[in-house]
Amino acid sequence: MLRFVTGNDGKVREARAALSADVTQFSYDYTEIQSHDLGTIAAHGAREAYQEVGEPVMVEDSGLFVDALDGFPGPYSAYVEDTLGIDRVWHLTEPEEDHAAAFRSLIAYCDGSALETAPTVRDGDPPVAIFEGRVEGTIVAPRGEGGFGYDPIFEYDGRTFAEMEPDEKNAYSHRGRALEAFADWGETR
Amino acid sequence: MLRFVTGNDGKVREARAALSADVTQFSYDYTEIQSHDLGTIAAHGAREAYQEVGEPVMVEDSGLFVDALDGFPGPYSAYVEDTLGIDRVWHLTEPEEDHAAAFRSLIAYCDGSALETAPTVRDGDPPVAIFEGRVEGTIVAPRGEGGFGYDPIFEYDGRTFAEMEPDEKNAYSHRGRALEAFADWGETR
Repeated sequence: MLRFVTGNDGKVREARAALSADVTQFSYDYTEIQSHDLGTIAAHGAREAYQEVGEPVMVEDSGLFVDALDGFPGPYSAYVEDTLGIDRVWHLTEPEEDHAAAFRSLIAYCDGSALETAPTVRDGDPPVAIFEGRVEGTIVAPRGEGGFGYDPIFEYDGRTFAEMEPDEKNAYSHRGRALEAFADWGETR
Repeated sequence: MLRFVTGNDGKVREARAALSADVTQFSYDYTEIQSHDLGTIAAHGAREAYQEVGEPVMVEDSGLFVDALDGFPGPYSAYVEDTLGIDRVWHLTEPEEDHAAAFRSLIAYCDGSALETAPTVRDGDPPVAIFEGRVEGTIVAPRGEGGFGYDPIFEYDGRTFAEMEPDEKNAYSHRGRALEAFADWGETR
């Protein structure tokens, strides 16, 4: 059994669809640290959750990184959505020449073992394996009614994520790609 | 002896001037957690630093809170300065009717004792005393060459913090006020 440490039911459903493991939701309020690096934040959380339960756990952290804004809002995407809101993130990007941005998702997995075969491992006690997914797109004026968060201002291949059906968006999305990388490793292990 | 956990020499000089205790700089990279609340961030850091050295420690965290932006950039002021820059924080505030903002500084103190006489104590093991200083002003277009960080866009009583001499700014500043509250408590203890 794999415990997904999250308060978000939707993320658990996505993980169940993507992974062959038996995924259960684990509501544990792990410490989110401040870092420019999503992998560091997720690894810290996974290690703490593993120390709490002593069984395999995964943590996911994600963010929107706008190139012309030096990666802002990045790891603080949820805070910025709550305070500034996504319209202001569009207005900040609008006057810039470069509207390129990426959604990034990092999955951190910890089961107390050395995880030697994982492609990226963060040392520590115990070590944590990291899997990344990213999708590159363009920041645009808000369009579409679907999705959540920054989806209305993130355009991929001519449409915003808020203009896509959930299944379609999941096929392209950063989190889907991180889950796929994690699943691929799980199968070869 | 009181260890001030910071990498900033200027903050240590301010603390020495304000406190009667023997203040030494302690360069320890404590975990900064994500929180909307500066007191929670500072308390977590002070507790961790105390557990590391077992002697009295203080941690300071500060931020700029813009009313019309729901407190943004708040606890992530340093990250936002590095990525967006202060000009963009002015441009975000400019179209708003309300330009009110506050600089806030929180000092967290931990010495392993119960700290029962302190005005604000965060429970935990061990407890941490919290002292706050704040200064209210207005966000304006950048002016002045002095200070650092957001000083050029923060106007207090007709001038920006960047237009004041250091001594004058320190007399009004959030950090000076937090240090004063901490010093007052130390004298009555």
